[in-house]
Amino acid sequence: MAELPTSHLAAAVLTDGNRALVAVIAVVALAALVLAGVLVRQVLAAGEGTDSMKKIAAAVQEGANAYLARQLRTLGVFAVVVFFLLMLLPADDWNQRAGRSIFFLIGAAFSAATGYIGMWLAVRSNVRVAAAAREATPAPGEPEKDLALVSHKATKIAFRTGGVVGMFTVGLGLLGACCVVLVYAADAPKVLEGFGLGAALIAMFMRVGGGIFTKAADVGADLVGKVEQGIPEDDPRNAATIADNVGDNVGDCAGMAADLFESYAVTLVAALILGKVAFGDFGLAFPLLVPAIGVLTAMIGIFAVAPRRSDRSGMSAINRGFFISAVISLVLVAVAVFVYLPGKYADLDGVTDAAIAGKSGDPRILALVAVAIGIVLAALIQQLTGYFTETTRRPVKDIGKSSLTGPATVVLAGISLGLESAVYTALLIGLGVYGAFLLGGTSIMLALFAVALAGTGLLTTVGVIVAMDTFGPVSDNAQGIAEMSGDVEGAGAQVLTDLDAVGNTTKAITKGIAIATAVLAAAALFGSYRDAITTGAADVGEKLSGEGAPMTLMMDISQPNNLVGLIAGAAVVFLFSGLAINAVSRSAGAVVYEVRRQFRERPGIMDYSEKPEYGKVVDICTRDALRELATPGLLAVMAPIFIGFTLGVGALGAFLAGAIGAGTLMAVFLANSGGSWDNAKKLVEDGHHGGKGSEAHAATVIGDTVGDPFKDTAGPAINPLLKVMNLVALLIAPAVIKFSYGADKSVVVRVLIAVVAFAVIAAAVYVSKRRGIAMGDEDDADPEPKSADPAVVS
Amino acid sequence: MAELPTSHLAAAVLTDGNRALVAVIAVVALAALVLAGVLVRQVLAAGEGTDSMKKIAAAVQEGANAYLARQLRTLGVFAVVVFFLLMLLPADDWNQRAGRSIFFLIGAAFSAATGYIGMWLAVRSNVRVAAAAREATPAPGEPEKDLALVSHKATKIAFRTGGVVGMFTVGLGLLGACCVVLVYAADAPKVLEGFGLGAALIAMFMRVGGGIFTKAADVGADLVGKVEQGIPEDDPRNAATIADNVGDNVGDCAGMAADLFESYAVTLVAALILGKVAFGDFGLAFPLLVPAIGVLTAMIGIFAVAPRRSDRSGMSAINRGFFISAVISLVLVAVAVFVYLPGKYADLDGVTDAAIAGKSGDPRILALVAVAIGIVLAALIQQLTGYFTETTRRPVKDIGKSSLTGPATVVLAGISLGLESAVYTALLIGLGVYGAFLLGGTSIMLALFAVALAGTGLLTTVGVIVAMDTFGPVSDNAQGIAEMSGDVEGAGAQVLTDLDAVGNTTKAITKGIAIATAVLAAAALFGSYRDAITTGAADVGEKLSGEGAPMTLMMDISQPNNLVGLIAGAAVVFLFSGLAINAVSRSAGAVVYEVRRQFRERPGIMDYSEKPEYGKVVDICTRDALRELATPGLLAVMAPIFIGFTLGVGALGAFLAGAIGAGTLMAVFLANSGGSWDNAKKLVEDGHHGGKGSEAHAATVIGDTVGDPFKDTAGPAINPLLKVMNLVALLIAPAVIKFSYGADKSVVVRVLIAVVAFAVIAAAVYVSKRRGIAMGDEDDADPEPKSADPAVVS
Repeated sequence: MAELPTSHLAAAVLTDGNRALVAVIAVVALAALVLAGVLVRQVLAAGEGTDSMKKIAAAVQEGANAYLARQLRTLGVFAVVVFFLLMLLPADDWNQRAGRSIFFLIGAAFSAATGYIGMWLAVRSNVRVAAAAREATPAPGEPEKDLALVSHKATKIAFRTGGVVGMFTVGLGLLGACCVVLVYAADAPKVLEGFGLGAALIAMFMRVGGGIFTKAADVGADLVGKVEQGIPEDDPRNAATIADNVGDNVGDCAGMAADLFESYAVTLVAALILGKVAFGDFGLAFPLLVPAIGVLTAMIGIFAVAPRRSDRSGMSAINRGFFISAVISLVLVAVAVFVYLPGKYADLDGVTDAAIAGKSGDPRILALVAVAIGIVLAALIQQLTGYFTETTRRPVKDIGKSSLTGPATVVLAGISLGLESAVYTALLIGLGVYGAFLLGGTSIMLALFAVALAGTGLLTTVGVIVAMDTFGPVSDNAQGIAEMSGDVEGAGAQVLTDLDAVGNTTKAITKGIAIATAVLAAAALFGSYRDAITTGAADVGEKLSGEGAPMTLMMDISQPNNLVGLIAGAAVVFLFSGLAINAVSRSAGAVVYEVRRQFRERPGIMDYSEKPEYGKVVDICTRDALRELATPGLLAVMAPIFIGFTLGVGALGAFLAGAIGAGTLMAVFLANSGGSWDNAKKLVEDGHHGGKGSEAHAATVIGDTVGDPFKDTAGPAINPLLKVMNLVALLIAPAVIKFSYGADKSVVVRVLIAVVAFAVIAAAVYVSKRRGIAMGDEDDADPEPKSADPAVVS
Repeated sequence: MAELPTSHLAAAVLTDGNRALVAVIAVVALAALVLAGVLVRQVLAAGEGTDSMKKIAAAVQEGANAYLARQLRTLGVFAVVVFFLLMLLPADDWNQRAGRSIFFLIGAAFSAATGYIGMWLAVRSNVRVAAAAREATPAPGEPEKDLALVSHKATKIAFRTGGVVGMFTVGLGLLGACCVVLVYAADAPKVLEGFGLGAALIAMFMRVGGGIFTKAADVGADLVGKVEQGIPEDDPRNAATIADNVGDNVGDCAGMAADLFESYAVTLVAALILGKVAFGDFGLAFPLLVPAIGVLTAMIGIFAVAPRRSDRSGMSAINRGFFISAVISLVLVAVAVFVYLPGKYADLDGVTDAAIAGKSGDPRILALVAVAIGIVLAALIQQLTGYFTETTRRPVKDIGKSSLTGPATVVLAGISLGLESAVYTALLIGLGVYGAFLLGGTSIMLALFAVALAGTGLLTTVGVIVAMDTFGPVSDNAQGIAEMSGDVEGAGAQVLTDLDAVGNTTKAITKGIAIATAVLAAAALFGSYRDAITTGAADVGEKLSGEGAPMTLMMDISQPNNLVGLIAGAAVVFLFSGLAINAVSRSAGAVVYEVRRQFRERPGIMDYSEKPEYGKVVDICTRDALRELATPGLLAVMAPIFIGFTLGVGALGAFLAGAIGAGTLMAVFLANSGGSWDNAKKLVEDGHHGGKGSEAHAATVIGDTVGDPFKDTAGPAINPLLKVMNLVALLIAPAVIKFSYGADKSVVVRVLIAVVAFAVIAAAVYVSKRRGIAMGDEDDADPEPKSADPAVVS
């Protein structure tokens, strides 16, 4: 490809100084992995409690392994297909083309590994947390135990488990990016696109598959257990209980870890691509320096979570750990900025964009303020989500009160809370993006780089965020094992209930932060998308503005074709969420019929004389999850291809913007309403409004069941969906332009690709709909649902 | 203002020939009003049934009048304030400035009048429909009556009532637009903006206020009646029953009529503004010709609804009426196009845009195909919405089946149906807009005019659409009166139930078509928005593209500031929906406590020895509805002002696009899920899955109660919300540019306006939240909800 005057790519080079710096950063990444090893040994060193607890833990481990192994095999096939598809896409030269596909596989492998390790450790640490809590109940004749001490020990094990996953996420993410920069230097951006796509694609499948598995088991178990048979949560007589606990791990642990790994990798991709354009040579190293600092502070943050007596709840210790690592990050980034970056834009060698090179002001200020925006944004989202989901705050109390007038008002209260809280989080993220934009002044590329830097700022705390998030499922599981084994009662059980309530809030918080990374990364990736269009248009000799410029290349939103692209983008988010919720209803139906069958055919289960077949339910959830994840997954990959090759790259840009707009609000709406219903149920179970067994309790159980697929399947999957669509659009943009204008213009090719893409989507949606959303078919023995006598529901 | 080379406004003039044509069209509009008078006499001629039926109808009339009188007084104050605010905005000269404000008041008055007449007639025709149905039950000793004949007579009365409202909508809308064109000729566009805003603003308030009133009463009545006391819907012992019936009229009749009037007026505004630019002199008359034809075909359509024995359901007769008027419209428009419009673009005198004047092809083809797209779109949306909401189709049957596993699965099934069906309707509308865009070829203004023409095509069937829509509440009310009076049983009651089920579907269909008009009008209004920016930028000497052009003037979606605008637009739609649902929960709570109080203090109510105080509940709903409609209303007006004066006109354009994208999907999602829950309940009540009183029935009642505020309050209000925000943005754009660039640039003014706008929104939201969403406060005597014994719930 001829040397293009407008192309800035070739200008920046990896100077020796920067190469050494990147190497040092790679070492920091390895240090993170080493620390992870140390933490693993620490967690595994803790006691595992009674034999029956160990047996249950083993069953959960077996189920989790079976599911994840089958899932990764299926995804392996999918990854190989994409590996070759990527080869077809245009690239500067063979070296770049091969690098992109190879690092696509590496990104996928790292994402899968993070997820697997996250789950592997979680299924071992949950029994240890339960065992630690067990010590709270004094053996007969022994003196009363110091409850605070016991709960601190349990919290530490749960939090350290998360710390391991956090270290793996930042370690592998940083290591991958460093290797690409060291090997491909100036060509790094194109190869990073492959790395990012691999990470995002695997994370999306693990997120959707895990989400369907966990909620099918959870909803199925609740419907038959609590509603029909009137037996409590995690009751060993319920055949779906093991599957329920397995689900927490494959959904919340593996899915979330891969999700945050992908957010980390894609943000680095955006920062490096824009870094070259905005900061020249420095741009290839600085975007890696910020996350490296993040690794160091995460290490400190994880160890700093030492709960104190004076804490209002477990949440305060976690908040402290979070704030400490945020403050340290800010200080270290400030030092790094003033040591490493030059004082004037003119000194940024390797920058060819006249607007940037001639800019007044100090690049160090831009860098520092941008990163600070990201860090502050993470803290604010945490407070905001906490306000809307914590049991001690007004919104959840209001939902609790609404349970007095039945389930309909509980559902309505939760939905209006979700809708409203989504607005505040979205506006907060918008404010962060706008602040970074203002830093860029008149240069659009500088503004976009500032947005990417804010993204890396947000991610400096990702180590602690992942730790916070894994806290949820581990404590949830610990409670499950305690109830199933019946070996943890009284004070011990209460310790676990408190941990679980904290877990719900940390889960809602990490989802808020995860969607924020999606918006920042997506906004920043627009920079590389603009770059791809400018270069592509130059290749085919088309103008981008003024008279005669083709409308399909422009992203002006007042053009009807772009408005249609925007509506299609928002539509994909709605369809994605609808399909995910649908999948859970269907799979939960299969679980309900299986558990009912076992109750019918083995009457001894109810009086403990017979054992339910736990494995059967795990298989149903595994089979359904794998079958159902295909439709949303294919939709995410094929939709941008269809829109791009039919409406053109301009409308494809509007499509991405529409998806980001609707996706941000939808993700937070689903996460917050789900989280608030869950905690409103806990509020009533703690004795409010008539406590367990009351009508109010039955109403909140219904709210929680509606909220399950909201917060654990549909909501969190939107984050990787946005990333996958962004990267697919970025990768196909040059090809779309190539076949739309200039020498290779061919309507046939475009129509062919579009028809294939549409056919895949239509077939996937049709197949999933054919199975209907009803709970199994009428021909099953018409189950006569015993009216749940509220008194029994404990 | 100096003659600007780029301004095309002055070029087109109202030629004498066109002036005469517009006068003829005004006469057609008057004819519509005359026909409305004839229909009113026909409806009032029908018999009113027994004394007790008349007494109940009188009570409903009294409540409806009381509410609407108070609402119009409050809105009167609001209209006067906006009258003066409009005066402040820049305009070419005093004549235009005064005209805009005066026609703002006229638009508001017409919108209120259409709503009032719609309601006035509905509360008189419902008792007549009940009386007609009553004849189906033969007096003792008389022979069996011909049911089909009776149901046809009842259907005709209900449909003719809608016909009156339809005639008023098209008559007043067309009359208003003709007057503006006749009086202001070339200046018509600016004045029409005022006319459109008046119509949209009043319609939004009537829609939101009416929606809150009707669902507060409905939800409140169901919760105490069905759930707690186990008495059936519309039982005279329920103090909220009259309010429930009043609500149907103020919400569905008045709100919907004003809503469709506003859609009609705003689409005409967009078509005329763009018509001048695209078709020069012809552009001032042709956009009025299409709706005039619509009036004629609506007249035929209304009389063509003669139900036949062979019909599958009442729906088939209505479909026939709709299709007849659509086909006739298409034929007449084709004739008008080829008679009136020239064959070549060059012959369009008054066109100054070189790209259009020089365009090859035939303007008649563009006009005809564009209008045809609109007509076909209306028919397709009708079929699509019908599929997702009719009791005889698979989706609603699936929800019915999901009731076997309790309320949670019913809610989830309804939500995933709503999410998925929203996608298909949105993509259909997108296809329509894209088709019109392709017609425009390379000229953006021609493409936008084609979109506006498609809007007018959609509206040619508005007469029949309004008739279809009013069918719903009238039949719903008729059933209410029948049950309350107890004078219509057996076959008569069954006739009314069938009519009511058809009413639910017609309501969902009209909502789908209403949101389609919002998208088309909004997309077309972007044309005038672009025009406002081009003219404004020229005034202050700023360039719109290329080097040095300020980013805040550009609507390129890949710029972070525009992405933030887009997210804010989507956020306003989510906040608007959340507030509306919240308002219903709160007001329903007040109704629940009042009805409980009456049951407690007047034990005689249950055995009919004492009469409940119906008036008390009507007052509560009136007071709450008026208080609650302030927050969403102020949000709609202030949000664009805040975004415009802070982020600039470019981001304001992205804000509108974001609102259109999210608004379209949200409106259809809320309407379809609500409609499908309602009909799933009917499905079970017809005997499926255990019929009335079964657990499954209780589950669908909960689904329906959740769906009420979805489909009758939050969903339908999004349509006028989009229009109000569009018109406010269009009106303030010149002022924003004036204070952002050039001589009058003043950051102080912009900050001041933005702060005031933000303060108003924040205060409104805070005040509404302070009332909490709980059902009244704890200190009320803690109502011990009797556990609803399903057997009693009939």
